[in-house]
Amino acid sequence: MKYLSILGSTGSIGTQTLEIVRQFPNEFKVVGLTTNKNSDLLLKQIKEFRPKAVAIMDKTKVDDLLNFSSCQVYSGIEGLKKLATLEEADTVVNSLVGSVGIEPTYNAIKNKKDIALANKETLVAAGSVIMDEIRKNNANLMPIDSEHSAIFQCLNGENINEVSKITITCSGGPFKNHSKEQLQNVTAQDALKHPTWSMGAKITIDSATLMNKGFEVIEAHWLYGIPYEKIKIVIHPQSIIHSLVEFHDKSVIAQLGLPDMKIPIQYALSYPKRFTNNQQQLDMAKIRNLEFREPDFEMFPCLKYAYDAGATGGTLPAVMNAANEIAVWAFLDNKIRFLDIQRLIGRIMYGHKLIKNPTLSEILEADKKTKEEIKRIIEEEITIKN
Amino acid sequence: MKYLSILGSTGSIGTQTLEIVRQFPNEFKVVGLTTNKNSDLLLKQIKEFRPKAVAIMDKTKVDDLLNFSSCQVYSGIEGLKKLATLEEADTVVNSLVGSVGIEPTYNAIKNKKDIALANKETLVAAGSVIMDEIRKNNANLMPIDSEHSAIFQCLNGENINEVSKITITCSGGPFKNHSKEQLQNVTAQDALKHPTWSMGAKITIDSATLMNKGFEVIEAHWLYGIPYEKIKIVIHPQSIIHSLVEFHDKSVIAQLGLPDMKIPIQYALSYPKRFTNNQQQLDMAKIRNLEFREPDFEMFPCLKYAYDAGATGGTLPAVMNAANEIAVWAFLDNKIRFLDIQRLIGRIMYGHKLIKNPTLSEILEADKKTKEEIKRIIEEEITIKN
Repeated sequence: MKYLSILGSTGSIGTQTLEIVRQFPNEFKVVGLTTNKNSDLLLKQIKEFRPKAVAIMDKTKVDDLLNFSSCQVYSGIEGLKKLATLEEADTVVNSLVGSVGIEPTYNAIKNKKDIALANKETLVAAGSVIMDEIRKNNANLMPIDSEHSAIFQCLNGENINEVSKITITCSGGPFKNHSKEQLQNVTAQDALKHPTWSMGAKITIDSATLMNKGFEVIEAHWLYGIPYEKIKIVIHPQSIIHSLVEFHDKSVIAQLGLPDMKIPIQYALSYPKRFTNNQQQLDMAKIRNLEFREPDFEMFPCLKYAYDAGATGGTLPAVMNAANEIAVWAFLDNKIRFLDIQRLIGRIMYGHKLIKNPTLSEILEADKKTKEEIKRIIEEEITIKN
Repeated sequence: MKYLSILGSTGSIGTQTLEIVRQFPNEFKVVGLTTNKNSDLLLKQIKEFRPKAVAIMDKTKVDDLLNFSSCQVYSGIEGLKKLATLEEADTVVNSLVGSVGIEPTYNAIKNKKDIALANKETLVAAGSVIMDEIRKNNANLMPIDSEHSAIFQCLNGENINEVSKITITCSGGPFKNHSKEQLQNVTAQDALKHPTWSMGAKITIDSATLMNKGFEVIEAHWLYGIPYEKIKIVIHPQSIIHSLVEFHDKSVIAQLGLPDMKIPIQYALSYPKRFTNNQQQLDMAKIRNLEFREPDFEMFPCLKYAYDAGATGGTLPAVMNAANEIAVWAFLDNKIRFLDIQRLIGRIMYGHKLIKNPTLSEILEADKKTKEEIKRIIEEEITIKN
């Protein structure tokens, strides 16, 4: 039996994690849940799963919970950190969105919790600090992302020193066949229609700019200690092969499956076992066709930014991530246009004064300052336009 | 350092095995070599690799060797068995063609040699007896076939009890798009043009009738203890995915590579390590497209024969294999037509009196009798025609 504290339980990964808990009541017990501000859904989850404690980020909504739930209620970032280190939890599922996920992961590892990680920003912004803590505390970090779960599975029983190349597949997002002119005019609604995966809003926009794939390159670097020149991206519109690992003898192992996040979430929780579930079987003859092509770094410069930020290291990935985070929410709020996202990230990144081996607090400071800076730039640009 | 006795060293797998030995002189040493009747090539191999002993099946050619080589020379099936149990060898590479390969494998296992197995007939005809001996002698049997090497690699670090399905890929052979009428008139030369793999004559014809794929289903059953209903075939013309293993959680692991037999041969010899080689890298973006479709059991009834023979068990797979072996050589000799192969196999199989749990000698007896029977039938049919 694993005891789970699920950070971000009302989001896409969080609710799917709870569906898995429902399917395997003898394997998993929920002891903690958190939400950003969705108190209604959190209340329902409290009634069903009876956790020991919950947290809500939005302090104005804490009374919704205090009045109706029997468990301990925390709020704000301190509440998140509390739920990340809950005594009753042995495993923390981090499905938070954005850099707010960094500190809870860090604190959970310090408390020797196992981590099932869906929060990309943790490794993108703070990979070096986090992996150091993982080693020091002998903690386990299991990726939930389908691509990293795929790489993890391909490495089962293999020697990481015999890996010659990792190829991360990429659906290409909704705009893979768009021209530059077409990209100029896409709306948030267009971008939210992902061709293969059903996910939250932030990651869906990241998938449209391909920044999400850039993040995954940086995550793969930290998770598996592979240098950037050995990590490749291939566009694969069907999202059936989730990633491939090539070994020194030119043999390649890949993990495949229908695009269904429940499979990697379940694996992150059941590992090293595999539980029988009712998800749909992959039938290659029904799929018929798998396509592959090179990614277009010119049309999607976020890919280049991510490789550059990863190779440069220091605070640069945290800055890129922070700029991206604010730009994406501004795009979703119709404050900026689609191509402004990449333009603004580039502008911020190349003006950043790098700290080479940052501590966690220097990373968090860079995150905070960058967010303030890009918000100011966006507001200025809006003012100039009007 | 592994000490290899290579049975069938002048054939396609044998010569490629020697190329690998050449590449890794500090890893492998050749101590034994055998040929059917190619004494010229064997002499060259003796000069280069300086084995302790060699054998030639064709006794009329033994003098070619005795007069020119310094090592011990054996001949006939007794010679093969000697080379399979050579004291100096720790690993026997069995790349013999046909049921002649069964006894050498059996004897090698009895002598606790590790086996690198390319001879399909060993497991098709005598799987139950061979796997019993493997267990009794705690020997290792490594598959050389690309499909079984793929399955082996997909199972690395996994629990065989969590496997829900094995999918063996099949190029479809040179006639995958032929109509029944077109199949009637194909020649041996047409059949020898395999679209993706470069192999010996016998296996290339088996690939054209898809009997080869049927054999692989039976081999997979024995190698991995998977029931036939969980072993599927999918047509995949590009031969890039070599096989797929599905687990209980609907996650699928596949092994991929360019169609190059040196990769699985090398793996069978280097396992559990992987050696860096100069084979070509797989680049998915260059491959562009992978296709999959259901196999056509009506057009290629050898598939059905193999599933039936496997499920029935006993002496039936040995009989099917013996009938196929003679029919294929008769086709290569232009004595029968392409569709006669499957017709004759069906005729022999459904007239066979089954022995349920045969010993090795009963299997070899069934093999011998079947070969005599089908030869007689072929001669009768030729007589009637003329």
